[in-house]
Amino acid sequence: MIAENLLPDFQLKWKRIQDSMRQCGADGCLLSVGVNLFYMTGVMYNGYFYIGAEGEPCFFVKRPNGLQEGRLSYIHKPEQIPDYFAQHNIPMPKKLMLEADELTYSDYMRLLKVFQPEETANATMALRLIRMVKTPWEIKQTMLCAARHEEVYSKIPQLYRPGMTDLDLQIEIERVMRQHGSLGLFRAFGPNMDIFMGSLLAGDNAGCPSPFDFALGGAGLNAICPLGANGTLLEEGMAVMVDMAGNYTPYMTDMTRVFSIGRLTDAAYRAHDVSMHIHREISKTARPGVACSELYDISYRIAEEAGLKDNFMGTTQQAKFVGHGVGLQINELPVLTPRSKQVLEENMVFALEPKFVIPGVGAVGIENSYLVTADGVKKITCSPEEIIDLNNNH
Amino acid sequence: MIAENLLPDFQLKWKRIQDSMRQCGADGCLLSVGVNLFYMTGVMYNGYFYIGAEGEPCFFVKRPNGLQEGRLSYIHKPEQIPDYFAQHNIPMPKKLMLEADELTYSDYMRLLKVFQPEETANATMALRLIRMVKTPWEIKQTMLCAARHEEVYSKIPQLYRPGMTDLDLQIEIERVMRQHGSLGLFRAFGPNMDIFMGSLLAGDNAGCPSPFDFALGGAGLNAICPLGANGTLLEEGMAVMVDMAGNYTPYMTDMTRVFSIGRLTDAAYRAHDVSMHIHREISKTARPGVACSELYDISYRIAEEAGLKDNFMGTTQQAKFVGHGVGLQINELPVLTPRSKQVLEENMVFALEPKFVIPGVGAVGIENSYLVTADGVKKITCSPEEIIDLNNNH
Repeated sequence: MIAENLLPDFQLKWKRIQDSMRQCGADGCLLSVGVNLFYMTGVMYNGYFYIGAEGEPCFFVKRPNGLQEGRLSYIHKPEQIPDYFAQHNIPMPKKLMLEADELTYSDYMRLLKVFQPEETANATMALRLIRMVKTPWEIKQTMLCAARHEEVYSKIPQLYRPGMTDLDLQIEIERVMRQHGSLGLFRAFGPNMDIFMGSLLAGDNAGCPSPFDFALGGAGLNAICPLGANGTLLEEGMAVMVDMAGNYTPYMTDMTRVFSIGRLTDAAYRAHDVSMHIHREISKTARPGVACSELYDISYRIAEEAGLKDNFMGTTQQAKFVGHGVGLQINELPVLTPRSKQVLEENMVFALEPKFVIPGVGAVGIENSYLVTADGVKKITCSPEEIIDLNNNH
Repeated sequence: MIAENLLPDFQLKWKRIQDSMRQCGADGCLLSVGVNLFYMTGVMYNGYFYIGAEGEPCFFVKRPNGLQEGRLSYIHKPEQIPDYFAQHNIPMPKKLMLEADELTYSDYMRLLKVFQPEETANATMALRLIRMVKTPWEIKQTMLCAARHEEVYSKIPQLYRPGMTDLDLQIEIERVMRQHGSLGLFRAFGPNMDIFMGSLLAGDNAGCPSPFDFALGGAGLNAICPLGANGTLLEEGMAVMVDMAGNYTPYMTDMTRVFSIGRLTDAAYRAHDVSMHIHREISKTARPGVACSELYDISYRIAEEAGLKDNFMGTTQQAKFVGHGVGLQINELPVLTPRSKQVLEENMVFALEPKFVIPGVGAVGIENSYLVTADGVKKITCSPEEIIDLNNNH
């Protein structure tokens, strides 16, 4: 089931979860959420991944047919797992890690009944912490993704035609994304994160509050999808913020760039410069050991000193973070928020997105993804950062 | 918050959940899953909907800012709800309905702690049963969706160019979908239903098993999205099955049509005719009171009599259903499966999709959505049903 050349990468991940299990005294970890299965095996399947505190994992598969591996067993239901354990002399876990923040209540209770552990621990939190720090293969996938992301963004000026709405432009970008290998699906963690391929916000729609926990909102097209483009006609003096998904490989990148229809107000360019300044300051500060809360504080302070705190991360509704981890999901840990307890570690990938909503103009500011290196950070989304005037470039 | 003209429609839904509560002795129902909130209010928000066995509901909103309504209260966390109840003389529920099959274990446990009910009941199952039978507004939205769905499918022959892959064609269809108002997001119930805007299956990729619980599979583009188009070059003699999302309004439609590159084998046309024959037989049989299991049995029997049982709903992996309810999610109840206990009721909307995988050719068969009427069913996806040769029509 697992590609031979990637085995060392997956073994590293198995070791990490086993370390995490030992730390909390767990002797078994059972996973069944798609992204977690993929993380541990490189395969999306319907079934379970089980690992004890020592030794190799077992794979229990319901679907698809035809997967092969030594420790792979086809099952119809989780109730068959204890029989497999008994036959293979695998002890039943006393303290079992389960995906408490992802499994439904019903599925969780069913697994409790199957395994009857004396204690449980939260595999969701353990996995989110492990997934923060990327493996060599994950970093390679992230870099491949960034290159496609940049290539697509370079084509945006050619896609613009006067008279377009925000949605017209977004549709053309979506098509070019797909032509460049975008997988379409855009995965986010948590129940309040409905999004389709990213967000394009033009003019005052950028300030429209949404129910979801993204950096900015937008009214969307329909009450059932209240986020992003809302049919705004792209007009002279409007900022067009493009934050479309970097989902070209399993490991995503996050990048935002701003385009204008003609010239924006001076205040808008100033705010955009403040965003770029925040990026420069964070690039100088960020390194292993630096607190994520400090990165938020630096960003907020720069925004405040520039007189832009009321525009920072929204106006009528302001997001309380300025960045977040990126990986199999777009909103991984760590979160760059004042309350974060995390510190940067080598091989984390995070996106920094100091954005400003300027009433009457739209949203400005850039977002880049960074890889944390041994002694700093490396920018991995390298498209030009200045506001590009679509009137002069299409 | 709720549009005045739609209030009777939502009041009907509130009455239905109250009827369901009385049936199981529940005196409170708390909802927080997006589609359920939308179902009950017409608004997607981050928060809670609460209704007792009698009286009007309360709306507790975390985001977005700016919603207004008499019984709407902004909260930061669910722990504030009991205070609101105390202030407004709303009794705490003794038997509380919670979304057991949708809420995460952690969220469910948190709500249990907040409300400390003596007993619980499963709001997910209650809502799925209520949502089966559509209200007048929902039916209108479904009809609007079907019209757009048909319009987009009518343009497919013009989108084909010789030399395209399955993915090339799908990308052009996706664009036309979006230009016709597709909301993009394609919502499904349950954890193993990852899909992006639908499925286009060409040639033998149609028989490739997937981990997800859709009618057919497909290898997909990447191990993280193992479903649908896989880059197959569209070649002479290949069937191209298009099952792209009907997500033009909140209430979806489901429709599959088959295109060919030149002429297919006689066996493929025969199997396609068998699918159309199943549709005709089901159209004659289906009416309120008919068991969903019977609709499956009829379909299977016709397939078997035609010598096609090994091709029915897949080859290496066969789906054990031939249709399903459609609404806010693509896989609603009832499911047309041998084990279903449900019977058809007036105003249900279901999709029927008898499909056959023909090795060396691809998948054939059609899918239509039907509205159950007082004395039968009405087909609501009315695009031409014969296999269209793209070589002659592009």
